[in-house]
Amino acid sequence: MHHLHREKLFSLLDDDKSEIVYMKGAELMYRYDTDYEFPFRQESNFWYLTGVNEPDFHLILDLQTQEYHLFAPDRSAQYAVWHGIVKSKDELQDEYQPDHLHYEGALPKVLDELNPETIYCINEKQAEFIEEFDRKTPIDLDALENAITHCRVFKTDWELDQIREAARVNNIAHKAVLNALEPGKFEHQMKAVFDYHQIENGLTQDAYNGIFASGKNSAILHYVENNRPIHDGDLFLIDAGFECNGYASDFTRTYPANGEFSSTQAAMYEAVLEAQKQVIESSVPDAKMEDLHMLAARIIMQGLKDADIVQGSIDDMMEEDIFALFFPHGLGHFLGLDTHDVGGYPKGVERIERPGIKYLRMRRTLQPGMVLTIEPGLYFVPALLQPALEDEKASKFLNGSKLQDLMDFGGIRIEDNLIITENGHENLTTVPKERADIEEVMAG
Amino acid sequence: MHHLHREKLFSLLDDDKSEIVYMKGAELMYRYDTDYEFPFRQESNFWYLTGVNEPDFHLILDLQTQEYHLFAPDRSAQYAVWHGIVKSKDELQDEYQPDHLHYEGALPKVLDELNPETIYCINEKQAEFIEEFDRKTPIDLDALENAITHCRVFKTDWELDQIREAARVNNIAHKAVLNALEPGKFEHQMKAVFDYHQIENGLTQDAYNGIFASGKNSAILHYVENNRPIHDGDLFLIDAGFECNGYASDFTRTYPANGEFSSTQAAMYEAVLEAQKQVIESSVPDAKMEDLHMLAARIIMQGLKDADIVQGSIDDMMEEDIFALFFPHGLGHFLGLDTHDVGGYPKGVERIERPGIKYLRMRRTLQPGMVLTIEPGLYFVPALLQPALEDEKASKFLNGSKLQDLMDFGGIRIEDNLIITENGHENLTTVPKERADIEEVMAG
Repeated sequence: MHHLHREKLFSLLDDDKSEIVYMKGAELMYRYDTDYEFPFRQESNFWYLTGVNEPDFHLILDLQTQEYHLFAPDRSAQYAVWHGIVKSKDELQDEYQPDHLHYEGALPKVLDELNPETIYCINEKQAEFIEEFDRKTPIDLDALENAITHCRVFKTDWELDQIREAARVNNIAHKAVLNALEPGKFEHQMKAVFDYHQIENGLTQDAYNGIFASGKNSAILHYVENNRPIHDGDLFLIDAGFECNGYASDFTRTYPANGEFSSTQAAMYEAVLEAQKQVIESSVPDAKMEDLHMLAARIIMQGLKDADIVQGSIDDMMEEDIFALFFPHGLGHFLGLDTHDVGGYPKGVERIERPGIKYLRMRRTLQPGMVLTIEPGLYFVPALLQPALEDEKASKFLNGSKLQDLMDFGGIRIEDNLIITENGHENLTTVPKERADIEEVMAG
Repeated sequence: MHHLHREKLFSLLDDDKSEIVYMKGAELMYRYDTDYEFPFRQESNFWYLTGVNEPDFHLILDLQTQEYHLFAPDRSAQYAVWHGIVKSKDELQDEYQPDHLHYEGALPKVLDELNPETIYCINEKQAEFIEEFDRKTPIDLDALENAITHCRVFKTDWELDQIREAARVNNIAHKAVLNALEPGKFEHQMKAVFDYHQIENGLTQDAYNGIFASGKNSAILHYVENNRPIHDGDLFLIDAGFECNGYASDFTRTYPANGEFSSTQAAMYEAVLEAQKQVIESSVPDAKMEDLHMLAARIIMQGLKDADIVQGSIDDMMEEDIFALFFPHGLGHFLGLDTHDVGGYPKGVERIERPGIKYLRMRRTLQPGMVLTIEPGLYFVPALLQPALEDEKASKFLNGSKLQDLMDFGGIRIEDNLIITENGHENLTTVPKERADIEEVMAG
């Protein structure tokens, strides 16, 4: 299905002149100066355009003729001994269907024959590589990235199916963790259960470093140690997902480790859940992501106010960025070949330099075909709250004694994955999130 | 226990003059130009000397005073929000016990105060880094690597205990796979079982990319796709292990997928097992690794001759490198902070440039405190055998019609981990390897 991606790209780039796209596929990555090899995972743009999941390939797209040249490494018999069968040219042709298949040694000759007026490259490093063969042709470093980013933001049906499959397996793995969770177990035991169900179902590449955080660790946004015993009374936050054919899944849930939310946990949880549900309801074509972010922040602040943790008018607290103390990350991000997928800030759109929103990873108007996460959160982070309690401007909004009691509370995040459709959205996440449903599963 | 490693290093490096060791710890690694973060794993030498498992540290060892300077990154409150509690200087001092703790900004000042005559660095890149601060002091790029490699080859008791613990868990995980193996399952389902038991037992970092290979995939030495269904009649080869506190485990077993070795599988298996057992018996102080390698090769060739797959005198087949067609890798390697650990070829010892032994990863005389793998193998690799059948010199030793029938046979490897002791060795691997034991477990 990768030919559809090439066609999309061709439709965006000038085809009047003799111009080409050059792109280098990924090489194997090693840890420092050792032979520890990271599992091969193709670079996302190269994968998008080719579907080649092997190291050391290159491509040229001829924009005038719309022909696709694929360059394969020329492997020795010794390579076959260590890494597997070396595919013949016929096998490579069958599998990847380029218009022209070459070995990589032919790159200078093909460049010379095409004799382009411009070479489009994705970054400086690839430009430097191709300049070794051709120093005379001007290289453009902007247009390709802009075009391929635009293509990747709007998913094809095949891409949506990969994301649905990653989500299907992620639902299984998350539910298994919910069933296994109990005090006395370690965070890494939850990771063991989670990874087992992913790999068992054929997904072997994680989409990101999973977070399995109990107690106050749940307030660390990118907690990855996963080595603490889970205590009675803790919250447990799981934020994890794997890839299907390169396409990510990314869900978060927060559970009471002992199976029942305490009254404070329940109040905080309901604030986040209400924010998440209202934002999802509003996640339809033409909604603006920064408006949704601020909507979530308001609902969370209302929950904090109702629980007497903050005081004053919600408008003032929004104005004074008090919400950033409790919700210090963005509402969500595009999802695709990268977990934090490309396209959140297209050319000309800048981040809003304000504490409560500068970490928002996308400032886009939602459109059909976009896939994104909705993941509001509420955290008690001592590194943010202690200075705020000593700050004149912030402290008047804060109930100091209540907050001191909550310094070890941890955090809550609830994250679903949505496809934006013509009429609204399709929610891919079916892991329980209502309090009653969670408590019922954990009681069972 | 890392202070013992520093003491070993101090004892090997000159301490008469004002000289220092400078080393930079690892930074986080990202996939290509994305924010996909690989799980942090400290660089092995830095871990060996410090026990610091956090990114962005540096060390200086003052060889004259034997003082240990540790330089920590100076983290902001925003770092705490995303990555966790920022440790105070007191906490860092308590945990890592340096003689002098600094923030990294102090590096130029400390260098200036120490005013060394020589700076020892581990590689060119680190030398370039430190030259940014100090261009006048000569840098030595040899002595440190030689000294630290020598230290790492002979393990301390604490190191041996980490390796024993990695092996203990690896025995559990390998046995679980043996119990789960059956035709119809996929290779990745075996990986799911294996990884589950490692992570469940608290080991979260794999020591290398595990191999779960069925049928002819078992003849691919570094097969990592792991996506094929396992068929009745297949051999199944598992080569996998995780790390404990950085120290690797690395076992291989080969099983009949359906629980019973066929007569050809049994004959080939017995050849490898006999080679492995005889080599292990001979793995005692003063044994030479290249002699053990050739011993294994001879026994395997005898097995092939007994099965009428090769013909002629064993001496001639050894002389003519025929064994390299069937046993194309080395007998074993050092094991430690890297799976293929350092020290296999100390200064002055070169690889033997001969087909059957050039891939041997260590040419050392065994001594107490060394840890290594013993892993003979026997494979039917079409990419090696087909050309040999057409080669005049090789083909006279080969039974062509038998070999043609074995092109899809796959391969067999059996790998244990040994600690060399004063009196012989300690074998850390307890996963069944006798045919009768394997068949009994699989029947049960």
